[in-house]
Amino acid sequence: MKIKMPVIMVNVKAYSESMGDKDIALARACEEVKEELGVSIAYAPQMVDLALVVREVNIPVLAQHAEAFLPGSKTGYTVLEAVNEAGASGTLINHSEHRLELADIDFLVSEARKLDLYTVVCTNNIPVSMAAAELSPNCIAIEPPDLIGSGIPVSKAEPEIVKMSVEAVKDINKDIAVLCGAGISTGKDVKAALELGAEGVLLASGVVKAENPKEVLLDLANGT
Amino acid sequence: MKIKMPVIMVNVKAYSESMGDKDIALARACEEVKEELGVSIAYAPQMVDLALVVREVNIPVLAQHAEAFLPGSKTGYTVLEAVNEAGASGTLINHSEHRLELADIDFLVSEARKLDLYTVVCTNNIPVSMAAAELSPNCIAIEPPDLIGSGIPVSKAEPEIVKMSVEAVKDINKDIAVLCGAGISTGKDVKAALELGAEGVLLASGVVKAENPKEVLLDLANGT
Amino acid sequence: MKIKMPVIMVNVKAYSESMGDKDIALARACEEVKEELGVSIAYAPQMVDLALVVREVNIPVLAQHAEAFLPGSKTGYTVLEAVNEAGASGTLINHSEHRLELADIDFLVSEARKLDLYTVVCTNNIPVSMAAAELSPNCIAIEPPDLIGSGIPVSKAEPEIVKMSVEAVKDINKDIAVLCGAGISTGKDVKAALELGAEGVLLASGVVKAENPKEVLLDLANGT
Amino acid sequence: MKIKMPVIMVNVKAYSESMGDKDIALARACEEVKEELGVSIAYAPQMVDLALVVREVNIPVLAQHAEAFLPGSKTGYTVLEAVNEAGASGTLINHSEHRLELADIDFLVSEARKLDLYTVVCTNNIPVSMAAAELSPNCIAIEPPDLIGSGIPVSKAEPEIVKMSVEAVKDINKDIAVLCGAGISTGKDVKAALELGAEGVLLASGVVKAENPKEVLLDLANGT
Repeated sequence: MKIKMPVIMVNVKAYSESMGDKDIALARACEEVKEELGVSIAYAPQMVDLALVVREVNIPVLAQHAEAFLPGSKTGYTVLEAVNEAGASGTLINHSEHRLELADIDFLVSEARKLDLYTVVCTNNIPVSMAAAELSPNCIAIEPPDLIGSGIPVSKAEPEIVKMSVEAVKDINKDIAVLCGAGISTGKDVKAALELGAEGVLLASGVVKAENPKEVLLDLANGT
Repeated sequence: MKIKMPVIMVNVKAYSESMGDKDIALARACEEVKEELGVSIAYAPQMVDLALVVREVNIPVLAQHAEAFLPGSKTGYTVLEAVNEAGASGTLINHSEHRLELADIDFLVSEARKLDLYTVVCTNNIPVSMAAAELSPNCIAIEPPDLIGSGIPVSKAEPEIVKMSVEAVKDINKDIAVLCGAGISTGKDVKAALELGAEGVLLASGVVKAENPKEVLLDLANGT
Repeated sequence: MKIKMPVIMVNVKAYSESMGDKDIALARACEEVKEELGVSIAYAPQMVDLALVVREVNIPVLAQHAEAFLPGSKTGYTVLEAVNEAGASGTLINHSEHRLELADIDFLVSEARKLDLYTVVCTNNIPVSMAAAELSPNCIAIEPPDLIGSGIPVSKAEPEIVKMSVEAVKDINKDIAVLCGAGISTGKDVKAALELGAEGVLLASGVVKAENPKEVLLDLANGT
Repeated sequence: MKIKMPVIMVNVKAYSESMGDKDIALARACEEVKEELGVSIAYAPQMVDLALVVREVNIPVLAQHAEAFLPGSKTGYTVLEAVNEAGASGTLINHSEHRLELADIDFLVSEARKLDLYTVVCTNNIPVSMAAAELSPNCIAIEPPDLIGSGIPVSKAEPEIVKMSVEAVKDINKDIAVLCGAGISTGKDVKAALELGAEGVLLASGVVKAENPKEVLLDLANGT
């Protein structure tokens, strides 16, 4: 399934609020908001729920992570081919909570290209974003460390890092979409991120831990 | 779902032969053999297929691995609570292809106990099996390194390591079931393992890469 | 060089206060206190200073860590044979800041035995200490997580975990020395640890970050 | 100590032929060849021998690896500050046998710059070399995977990857020196590498496992 810009990507991490039936319910809320407002939303469920969530909703589903192996004799690791066979649309790569070796990011981006899986490489600053851009993923999500899980809106702190990262990435490869991957809780934050040149946002706790996730998603969607 | 002894545990690893629909088909074959012959079979699917496979078959389903974290802000890792919410019965721990730190094995075994998840700790020799026994998992699967994926039957090479491991583990804690985790391809191997004191077997490629997995499973089941 | 009990082991970690010339000065302070008071002190310098410190002082020197490899084509890792050739007396294994896989602890303990290197396996609770004891290292250092770097004396918090760990380890193998690896800052703490059954202590910041490390060492030595 | 181009960098890895006294002897051989032929040679000893080797020879000494931490409460890891205090001139980063996370390569390169330590980032292909170039290390060493430890001279297999990597790196940052990090055993190979645009070579077993390392070094030096 294609991922259209601007996009809201929801990463449910390993939160207890997004497991089992609650994982499916959250994915459904994303699907409803997409249908009601016509916005683009992608959803990264718990790894063990991936194949099930793909069957339950009609929005792009992403793996939170994949290992830099080809299929084979490996236990307890998820390879890109399994993500693909599960029907997912792509994968996050190198999330700040699951950093990868440089050579493995390169492996994953180029293997995913062969499988037509969408790649979102997370980065923490401008030089790292430029390095990632040389690997030509579909998308780069900037996560300025000071904003991760801080509740501080990106428009208040470090807006320039988003702006400069977008420019630096586009200078290297204008086809890479850049997302704002931290400092997003509200529709206002989404709007600010888009004004800084981002083509979407990646967020987690703001949705997953909300009392009413659908309400938050509607607000976020209004920012696009 | 309870795991009864003697048991045949099938770990599908990250093989391309056990992804997506093929993962479900393999789980179904296990279910059929269990129903036809009344044997105990547990199935460890691809991590991303776990919740889906649990819904599709009526046999105990295991995770191939879980991380030693509590639920929370972790991306691309599977915690025990997500395994539990997916409806799985337990998890492999410390597989030879996914070794864990000693303190993490202890964490996983004791957290799984609270969630009533079944724990299968893999070990590579007698001292390590004894160390694992001190942590009181439900089950220990011995994988003598020389037999892993070798095609050599355990009855031909290193039968004594299984026998001595069973005795060493039972001396420490007689409630721990001991499985033979390598050197098993046929019903004859299963029979040999049980005669050496094992209460079941853990295998992978012998089933997953078979031309006719159900036939292999029937043969294995006849060894119990 | 033999390590006699009761022992004070000083781990200098990667502190800036214990690098280069300061690493040698700290090792000298240990040597002086050993000579002045006749106590047993072992010293674990920065990894890159190991061979140099061995040449500079006449007390047992330990590696802070070793990798579970045999010598060979590995870059930037320290194997036991290099520790041995550097003239060190042994190594810490599985420190709380450098946890190891269970099978690797087993590998290191049994390889070190062949090289006659002294092994100190760090553990975090009673079941893990019992598991470690099954591997028969020379020594186990208990580091109750709540006490690590807390400044809380072991006699005030969790004295029972030291006492019970000593008993549990000795029940499995009475030849293993048990050290108290956290909650030690003063000679009074050392005395308390020995009264709880420990045969020595392992400490770091209390010495390394002291304004006058030798004074602290003299106080610690008076507790033995 | 400055590293002049063209350079021969010798990485002794964790080979048994380069431990303890043999490590110092190898470093001396490098020093002698440097003095006799006036060539630039840098030497990366066993990690535990680093400070000692620095004192014993008058050539640039490199760490084989450093961890992406600041000094502090870390056990058994080597930080850049300890490398610096040991008197070393720089460090290898991201060797094919010790891969690092992208964000950690960035951390190490920028921290090393502050300490005036020379950085040699190892890479495995052209896109990864370009990514590394965006981080502005002093030097990039290309290690085409098929040539590592193969004994195949770089001039025979994959010469174009060296040539194209040099061009790609220089296009991004002309101040970065590019080394050929695999396929080098003889002076002829060194010559071929320099003709392909490399400014030096990084090698290991060819020197360390030679019957007469000094002879090999003399031959290599004649290729510069």
